[in-house]
Amino acid sequence: MQELSCGTSNIVGVRFAVYPMADDFVKIIKGALKETDTSKVWMETDDVTTCIRGRSEHVFDTAKAIFVHAAKTGTHVVFNGTFSVGCPGDSEGDSYMSEDSHRLNEQAVSGEKIDTAAHFSLYPMNNPDYMQVIADQVETAEKHGTFTKGVHYASRLDGDVSDVFTTLEEAFVRASETKNRAHVTMTAAISANSPSTKAK
Amino acid sequence: MQELSCGTSNIVGVRFAVYPMADDFVKIIKGALKETDTSKVWMETDDVTTCIRGRSEHVFDTAKAIFVHAAKTGTHVVFNGTFSVGCPGDSEGDSYMSEDSHRLNEQAVSGEKIDTAAHFSLYPMNNPDYMQVIADQVETAEKHGTFTKGVHYASRLDGDVSDVFTTLEEAFVRASETKNRAHVTMTAAISANSPSTKAK
Repeated sequence: MQELSCGTSNIVGVRFAVYPMADDFVKIIKGALKETDTSKVWMETDDVTTCIRGRSEHVFDTAKAIFVHAAKTGTHVVFNGTFSVGCPGDSEGDSYMSEDSHRLNEQAVSGEKIDTAAHFSLYPMNNPDYMQVIADQVETAEKHGTFTKGVHYASRLDGDVSDVFTTLEEAFVRASETKNRAHVTMTAAISANSPSTKAK
Repeated sequence: MQELSCGTSNIVGVRFAVYPMADDFVKIIKGALKETDTSKVWMETDDVTTCIRGRSEHVFDTAKAIFVHAAKTGTHVVFNGTFSVGCPGDSEGDSYMSEDSHRLNEQAVSGEKIDTAAHFSLYPMNNPDYMQVIADQVETAEKHGTFTKGVHYASRLDGDVSDVFTTLEEAFVRASETKNRAHVTMTAAISANSPSTKAK
């Protein structure tokens, strides 16, 4: 059950999928996974989504790398997932918390410049001040220069894939720091190579 | 900003996208939208996602219809989105709350039998008992016969698309009824025609 299947301690997780809008989507996904170093995270894939868990920096590093390797093909690709920290529950994968902080995929993907558009939403759980936590992290996004505007239920970011992921990571980490071991989740839909964008 | 762009009253919304994993994804999406009667909901699409808002039953009816019309093509299609109710904020679209409860798309899609697999998560906001609310709605899913198991951060459903959407709608509505005008969100990733499923 959901309440028995979350993480303990400060383990961060993301349940996501990368959707290449192309007939050869299997090849693109498998290629992206092959190019990504996943050795510092716990990872499990089923027929609906993939789950990555571990230290915050490695979860974001790995998720970003999989998306970048898929998007650099030029195909319209969307990353859609939910990041989570502080969920009460089990501890499977906690061994990955002892990894050092060096990001395994940073160098390989930092050279890829990919325009992206994203919608993200923060959900700080069990917190009467959650709307303020959200507003504060919109300010974080504004400082990064990626914040475009609010839309119903979400905030829109535009920019290079690295700037967008850096914004998401900082907003998520800062929101989780507002309370000791707070349970915070963040949804993010990140789109690259969309024909709708090109048409603008 | 996110906190100024949510709904008031009991208006329900969903921000989602339908991802056809095919070269002709634009044709599939446009075809699905054309076949869906959206006249009882407020709807806005940009290059990342689509937002639908209105009465709960019409939001679920419309979202399901768009997904079914895309998935009935046989293409591997995924619905990924977040439902929301009770978010403090503006009231744009409230006029749609006066529609009657007759579902405009039910008849057209009820004949389509499509096997689906889904991951969903409930996020009851500002509620110290939120884990219990989640556990109660896992029981709702079990009663529908669609609940398969818990996975990290989510619950898995399997079944015909109508049974899965009915489960999601009931879990969402019941979770929102636990507190007066509670703010509840629910993420859902629903997959049809996946080659990974067929390979099992």
